Amino acid sequence: MKQEKPLILITNDDGPHAGGVKALLEVIRPLGNVVAVIPSEGQSGMSHAITVRRPVFIEKEIRKKDFHYFEVSGTPVDCIKLALHTLMPRKPDLILSGINHGSNASINIIYSGTMGAAIEGAINRIPAIGFSLNSFDPDAEMKVAAQIAGAIVRKFLEIKPLVCLNVNIPALPAGEIKGIEVCRQTVGYWAEDFEAVEPQNGKRGFRLTGVFHNAEPETPGTDEWALRNGYVAIVPVAPDFTHHEGLAGLSSWDFEKIGNTVQTGKGHH
Amino acid sequence: MKQEKPLILITNDDGPHAGGVKALLEVIRPLGNVVAVIPSEGQSGMSHAITVRRPVFIEKEIRKKDFHYFEVSGTPVDCIKLALHTLMPRKPDLILSGINHGSNASINIIYSGTMGAAIEGAINRIPAIGFSLNSFDPDAEMKVAAQIAGAIVRKFLEIKPLVCLNVNIPALPAGEIKGIEVCRQTVGYWAEDFEAVEPQNGKRGFRLTGVFHNAEPETPGTDEWALRNGYVAIVPVAPDFTHHEGLAGLSSWDFEKIGNTVQTGKGHH
Repeated sequence: MKQEKPLILITNDDGPHAGGVKALLEVIRPLGNVVAVIPSEGQSGMSHAITVRRPVFIEKEIRKKDFHYFEVSGTPVDCIKLALHTLMPRKPDLILSGINHGSNASINIIYSGTMGAAIEGAINRIPAIGFSLNSFDPDAEMKVAAQIAGAIVRKFLEIKPLVCLNVNIPALPAGEIKGIEVCRQTVGYWAEDFEAVEPQNGKRGFRLTGVFHNAEPETPGTDEWALRNGYVAIVPVAPDFTHHEGLAGLSSWDFEKIGNTVQTGKGHH
Repeated sequence: MKQEKPLILITNDDGPHAGGVKALLEVIRPLGNVVAVIPSEGQSGMSHAITVRRPVFIEKEIRKKDFHYFEVSGTPVDCIKLALHTLMPRKPDLILSGINHGSNASINIIYSGTMGAAIEGAINRIPAIGFSLNSFDPDAEMKVAAQIAGAIVRKFLEIKPLVCLNVNIPALPAGEIKGIEVCRQTVGYWAEDFEAVEPQNGKRGFRLTGVFHNAEPETPGTDEWALRNGYVAIVPVAPDFTHHEGLAGLSSWDFEKIGNTVQTGKGHH
């Protein structure tokens, strides 16, 4: 590979046959040297999972001049880790994940393998973007979403910011997309339901279903609001779970007393 | 079950045979009515993963007066979801996860099935605590950690705060634990390595290994500092990935121009 061109790592969580990653590769390959490391099987809902109990295998490997392609029997985060530490000639300039078939706005980010991969980039201090289309249709038209992804990536390569973005794109014709909005993550949750399935060996079985609930549906500046109002929603993300506003309140708990209760060394030192 | 006692949901990510969850159950069962929903197999590294591609099954089920016990063929987050929506008589007063065999301080929180379960509690607005012992030894002595967990849970049941805690406990004798510190998540990452394993069907295989790097080792107020200095580290956590400090900088990007590039409807409306 020539090294003067940007080196871009691409993965997804829908696997190698998904239209989203094919559309992303088509629009990104002209922009640099691309290494694609794709989970060999669908990994929706795998979040930031890593494979620690067994090895991962390279199921397929194609090497061209400006394009290396791998399929790996692991999670999206496994793909990023293996790419960074074993499969790539150097640290990439940018990590891209997607285009996911389905929204990763609001709390969906935490369940998302697509965003798990992007956030693994952030942990490694590499610029990263996860792209998702707000349609679960596996045959959804990805052309507009890929155009938008390409434009954002060109901007990224120009200004080289050290950020991680969660980009959610409305499933609308180009003419109906109103623009791009920078947002925060919407407060929301899934109201789950479990469908009973046929018991196996007498054991009760359940299949997860559910409906997403937006806890703040009328709030501009949130990613769900942007998406539902026809905007591309961009949330800058960071891998920090600390509830910073909660720190002070918690410090006022009587932990000294708890310390005594459990007979720690407090008082002996 | 009598309902005047607190209703407590317990899970873990090390599975039913782990010493950590056994020690936790022993100290928590006297405090309320307990429902344990435990992954039937080890789920370390499963993060916030959910099982969306197949059903989950109840592998084992024991019902006593004040204690219901289930083993479920899913992830820790599956266990919480199935408990909340199918297996429990009402919403629990508290969710506990652990005691994990191994630290979940710093960036370990994002890979952790233990913390995935606790954070699922936070998403559902239920008080939740993940407990972890700073020792990967499967036979580690859990008595001191369980005593500390019990003391924190008694405090929780007294003041009923709507918070989610990541509690990491040093693997030290009680007399050497200096106290309890409220902290923020330490900035850190894993420097990965992959060991090549025997190829299968000619396919290259790799096993994940690595070493944790603390990016701010001398910083009091971080969970790693507390843990390494003999304190129980408590981090309040929230399921919000937004990089709030990054929002303003990102808004200054020329997204208008990107909007034009992708020929969105901007200007036609």
